[in-house]
Amino acid sequence: MGDLDRILNADSVAVIGASRDETKRGYQAIATLKKSGFEGGIYPVNPHERRVLGLRCYADVEEIKEAVDLALITTPAHTVPALLAACGRKGIAGAVVIAGGFGEMGSQGKRLEQEIKDTARAHGVRLVGPNTSGIINMWSGLNLVGLADVPKGDIALLTQSGNIALHLITEAKLRSHKGFSYYVGVGNESDIHFDEYLEFFRNDEKTKAILMYVEGLRDGRTFLQQVYTTSREKPIILLKSGRSTTGQKSAGSHTGALAGISEVARSSFERAGVINIEHPDQLFPVAETLSSLPPIRNRKVAILADGGGHATIASDLLTDLGVEIPTLSDRTQAKLKAILPHNAAVSNPVDVAGGTDSNPEIFAECARILLGDPNIGGLLIVGLFGGYAIRFAEKLRFIEEDASHQMGKLVRKSGKPIILQSLYNSVKPHSLELLRYYGIPVYESLDIATKCIGELSRYGQYLSTYKLKTSFQFNWGAKAKKHAVGIIQKARSEGRRYLFEYEAKEILRRHGAPVTHEQLAKTADDAVRMARDIGGSVVLKIVSPDILHKSDAGGVRLNLENEDQVRDAFHRIIDNAREYKPGAVIKGCLVGSMTKKGVEVIIGTKIDRQFGPVVVFGIGGILVEVVRDVSFRVLPLSRAAATRMIDEIKSAPILNGFRGSPALDKQALSDLLLTVSEVIESYPEIEEMDLNPVMVHDHGIDIADARMILKKATAEKPPLD
Amino acid sequence: MGDLDRILNADSVAVIGASRDETKRGYQAIATLKKSGFEGGIYPVNPHERRVLGLRCYADVEEIKEAVDLALITTPAHTVPALLAACGRKGIAGAVVIAGGFGEMGSQGKRLEQEIKDTARAHGVRLVGPNTSGIINMWSGLNLVGLADVPKGDIALLTQSGNIALHLITEAKLRSHKGFSYYVGVGNESDIHFDEYLEFFRNDEKTKAILMYVEGLRDGRTFLQQVYTTSREKPIILLKSGRSTTGQKSAGSHTGALAGISEVARSSFERAGVINIEHPDQLFPVAETLSSLPPIRNRKVAILADGGGHATIASDLLTDLGVEIPTLSDRTQAKLKAILPHNAAVSNPVDVAGGTDSNPEIFAECARILLGDPNIGGLLIVGLFGGYAIRFAEKLRFIEEDASHQMGKLVRKSGKPIILQSLYNSVKPHSLELLRYYGIPVYESLDIATKCIGELSRYGQYLSTYKLKTSFQFNWGAKAKKHAVGIIQKARSEGRRYLFEYEAKEILRRHGAPVTHEQLAKTADDAVRMARDIGGSVVLKIVSPDILHKSDAGGVRLNLENEDQVRDAFHRIIDNAREYKPGAVIKGCLVGSMTKKGVEVIIGTKIDRQFGPVVVFGIGGILVEVVRDVSFRVLPLSRAAATRMIDEIKSAPILNGFRGSPALDKQALSDLLLTVSEVIESYPEIEEMDLNPVMVHDHGIDIADARMILKKATAEKPPLD
Repeated sequence: MGDLDRILNADSVAVIGASRDETKRGYQAIATLKKSGFEGGIYPVNPHERRVLGLRCYADVEEIKEAVDLALITTPAHTVPALLAACGRKGIAGAVVIAGGFGEMGSQGKRLEQEIKDTARAHGVRLVGPNTSGIINMWSGLNLVGLADVPKGDIALLTQSGNIALHLITEAKLRSHKGFSYYVGVGNESDIHFDEYLEFFRNDEKTKAILMYVEGLRDGRTFLQQVYTTSREKPIILLKSGRSTTGQKSAGSHTGALAGISEVARSSFERAGVINIEHPDQLFPVAETLSSLPPIRNRKVAILADGGGHATIASDLLTDLGVEIPTLSDRTQAKLKAILPHNAAVSNPVDVAGGTDSNPEIFAECARILLGDPNIGGLLIVGLFGGYAIRFAEKLRFIEEDASHQMGKLVRKSGKPIILQSLYNSVKPHSLELLRYYGIPVYESLDIATKCIGELSRYGQYLSTYKLKTSFQFNWGAKAKKHAVGIIQKARSEGRRYLFEYEAKEILRRHGAPVTHEQLAKTADDAVRMARDIGGSVVLKIVSPDILHKSDAGGVRLNLENEDQVRDAFHRIIDNAREYKPGAVIKGCLVGSMTKKGVEVIIGTKIDRQFGPVVVFGIGGILVEVVRDVSFRVLPLSRAAATRMIDEIKSAPILNGFRGSPALDKQALSDLLLTVSEVIESYPEIEEMDLNPVMVHDHGIDIADARMILKKATAEKPPLD
Repeated sequence: MGDLDRILNADSVAVIGASRDETKRGYQAIATLKKSGFEGGIYPVNPHERRVLGLRCYADVEEIKEAVDLALITTPAHTVPALLAACGRKGIAGAVVIAGGFGEMGSQGKRLEQEIKDTARAHGVRLVGPNTSGIINMWSGLNLVGLADVPKGDIALLTQSGNIALHLITEAKLRSHKGFSYYVGVGNESDIHFDEYLEFFRNDEKTKAILMYVEGLRDGRTFLQQVYTTSREKPIILLKSGRSTTGQKSAGSHTGALAGISEVARSSFERAGVINIEHPDQLFPVAETLSSLPPIRNRKVAILADGGGHATIASDLLTDLGVEIPTLSDRTQAKLKAILPHNAAVSNPVDVAGGTDSNPEIFAECARILLGDPNIGGLLIVGLFGGYAIRFAEKLRFIEEDASHQMGKLVRKSGKPIILQSLYNSVKPHSLELLRYYGIPVYESLDIATKCIGELSRYGQYLSTYKLKTSFQFNWGAKAKKHAVGIIQKARSEGRRYLFEYEAKEILRRHGAPVTHEQLAKTADDAVRMARDIGGSVVLKIVSPDILHKSDAGGVRLNLENEDQVRDAFHRIIDNAREYKPGAVIKGCLVGSMTKKGVEVIIGTKIDRQFGPVVVFGIGGILVEVVRDVSFRVLPLSRAAATRMIDEIKSAPILNGFRGSPALDKQALSDLLLTVSEVIESYPEIEEMDLNPVMVHDHGIDIADARMILKKATAEKPPLD
């Protein structure tokens, strides 16, 4: 029996801090446990009480004779360490800690949080929270939140805010037929993180969809891996807040400034199969829809309307969401024409144009025709359905209800979803309640109804295209090359937090990157000899541990074509460097062949606080720096992800052969992205890598410049800038 | 008394097609008129009835003795022309025509629509519709829609879809304290257009805001002008649908392909002061908010929360909407600290952190402190307010209600708005009803509440920055130059629908554009002589009515530096042209000086189907063609609009001096945009203009190439391509 199983499916629970005061959690939790029909043992614990709500109250947990799975601790923060130790001695598997005043409250709180974490670990007790609103198992009645009337169902709710949970529960209760399997307030995540709960819900048979509200992630990479595994089996609907503030905290280094955290989160969530929601209104409805209906596999949807305005707006909104509204086949149109008036629109959107005013059953017939078309993956019905009895004649009520039954059964039979938008939804007509009974969600809002269809379609697309081999986990150092490790160790031993360009390139070369061979010339004669060996025009660049920005120091000379030029360039570079930074240690000049002109791209990596190493890609110059046309991925990359990050920038057509120029070598570019991924995986010491520019040709690529910065070690010089 | 006044404020109405059948509009309208308390004359008209609903029924309108202002015509389309004529003879001012089957139903319908339009005009009758759901004056009870229970208030509702109107009315009834002053279903707009209704509502004292749903505009320019005049006095909240389909219909020519109609609509609506809504859920709430609360002038908002999650999400959403959430002053923070617990957040967002659990009145105190801060323009309250009695203790009910009274009066006193989001809204607690009574909108949705604050802020910004002189009307031909008119006439007389490059440039030059002088050389000797006069390097370009794409025909030679090169180039160009298009008429070569290299921009104009002449601007090459980084405006331009359209493209920093290069001459560029505007205004014959590229330098600009296409005339050759 897993840790979380003994917590979330606990057979018995001790309520530490049990109370007879109705306003206290120690009272409310016990009252709610009894009201919710929890059949396991309930053990109030409080040395000052003898009975609470008719139950015997214990002085401490160790006094309880029976086995106890779980403890709810409702007492103040400072009491928690000793209580956890007692729980451990009693053999309790987990503790839900309500109190705040830990990591969220400054350094003293952080110390206390570390203490409870250590105590819990030492005593084999797993922690939910602290600073949590609690947990609920709707099926066993294990309700530790003290909130009655939570609807039961198949959605697991996992949040970092009790009030947002309350908001979602209220919405479910008032506007749907759906409910929850579990609720978990993760709190400070000090022991159990989001990913462990996800794993539990993935394996839980009662849970069909997982609804999450996240403010911050402790370990984004492990989270993504778990999401990736889970989302193939059950949809995960997630709202991540803190986009605006985290954006402000983005790092100041070149690549850092581009890598807005929210963009990293968005692209990595998408890759892991998350249904990523930015507007809270959509959160519950999308979960309702995805837990109730089969996904749409072909992105093609029909709209059936009584209401031309509603049909037009729905078309706009679905188009915005990337859903296709294909023109119906002649055959389907002919079938519709046979039952609709001559002024009805039958191409898609279908507008019944009053054809159902006296017989709303025609809606069910239209739905049957539309879902019977093999080219149509799902159906959105908009406008008046649900209101025929109200709008036209009372006697239409039963015809409308019959239509609901027919449409409900049609979804089951066809395996294709229907979502209905009705302007009469808030009046709660029985016909719409019937649709919900069959699992057809009904919304008053066109925005919500179209978003739900859109996400059914996006999830269907994800399920048909995801790659099994994607991994968000590194095998750190497994592919490291001895020589490269030596380069990094040498830099460390010299107290550097960066590698020289030739060192960075050498590491890339060892991993198969197309780096032209470059050599370090200590004298002008060296340089001339090396230039002769290379042949053609060469470039010379300063090598100095004290000069990182070589061009600024006059430390780069290009297009050197003969001995005199090389010799002259060597001397000038050395002179410039001495003038630029008197006393700088100068190792000599790097001699290399000129790279061919091509389209300049940049590839950079950095460490994201939540997700670890990420890579950014863009076409150099204005497109990156002004237009910010870049793509991000969490590393490591798969071939598919590398290809997609090249293709998803807006300016990608430049690489495909723009205005008659030849197509460029995108294969070599994605090879390089995979090499970058491998290098980062090989050497955990690397904090940032910057390949800028990389020249892309019609055949092959050249890395014109490469920079690597190492992570902080204990005692060292900081990097230069 | 204006036409619309006699219609929308009619004292008497004839119902043509009056009926005793409850399912007919001719019954419902009379029943609703009586129920709504309409005190004017009601005259049923139907030759087959003697009495309807207790009223005398007339055989036709001319039989009525009393004066009649308005007729409601409920009979089929084909009966309408004769009825309109009778209305005219009777002296009726306007007719509301319900029937469909006109312009929306093919060519026969179009003819019938023209017939009713002509008949109405000939008889001095103004038309509402046809194909309309009708009109309502909520204050007089003139309700011709047959829809009872419409709430009365200060929002005028103007739509092109009866079902959308029904949707909005239902929403108002169930979720607000607000209602409507008028409803108008504009229908096919065959006589009275949107702009006339707008003008009426601008002058109507009962109307405080105008809520519109638009599918298509008959005359976008007149509409914009009226919107512009009206929006300074009353907010206009508008949803324009058909973005997706109209986008597909965008013209195929170069500039046309870029000028997606929806982008033109968006930018011109914004310039005219429209509050442009794309999501139907926001439509009524934004109208409710803007008709109830003062706009925010400084974009700065405070968030007051009980609920950390709600505060975080609200921060994200407000940031997306361009609203600032400034850190509060030390003084304000100190005041908040004095009344909130030590763990409360007081910098903004303010989170009461349980500080109000036992005393929700603290909300009112916080609101007073926040709106008392001169740096704060408005307040958004999110989370639990409204639910303290439900969540904590029944006795808090009255304290909460007192807080509502205080906050309501605070809005009146401070002149600053409060919007409240409550997760208990759907429970309808009395404290929230009270807030509505004071005009504070309350929403359950964070999305809606933040959007409403966002639009209060945007409208406030608009009111503080709009320019009085903006005009959307052309004074066609007023600034035309005689010489330029001659050029266009000459092209027409030669059967051309385009101007030669030198002709187009000559027109631009006459309006002050910086065009280098170019001359037409008929022989190589001509060319040599002209090149000598110009001095420096020159360019030669083919001039042929049969060759529009000069480069493709080998018809352009650049950088010619001496006599031999000029002579050789002339002959080669002529030879190339003959080979490219045997039999082409060749007029010679244009000789001009080489334009300096600079940043290439493009300026194009086209005729938008709804808005008439529009201009597009972008930085040439990849940024326009791949990234589609362009800006649009409806012509004519003001200086402010020209400046803004240059600055609003993403790549604008390039013009400001990117990477150490000097700032470019944006003044000259905006001069040229104004010239383009003036040229289009001067010569209505011009259909498209394309200046591509225009070279922008640090001082001055050069128009490297110019194309103009003329509008179709009766008998002519089409343009070449």
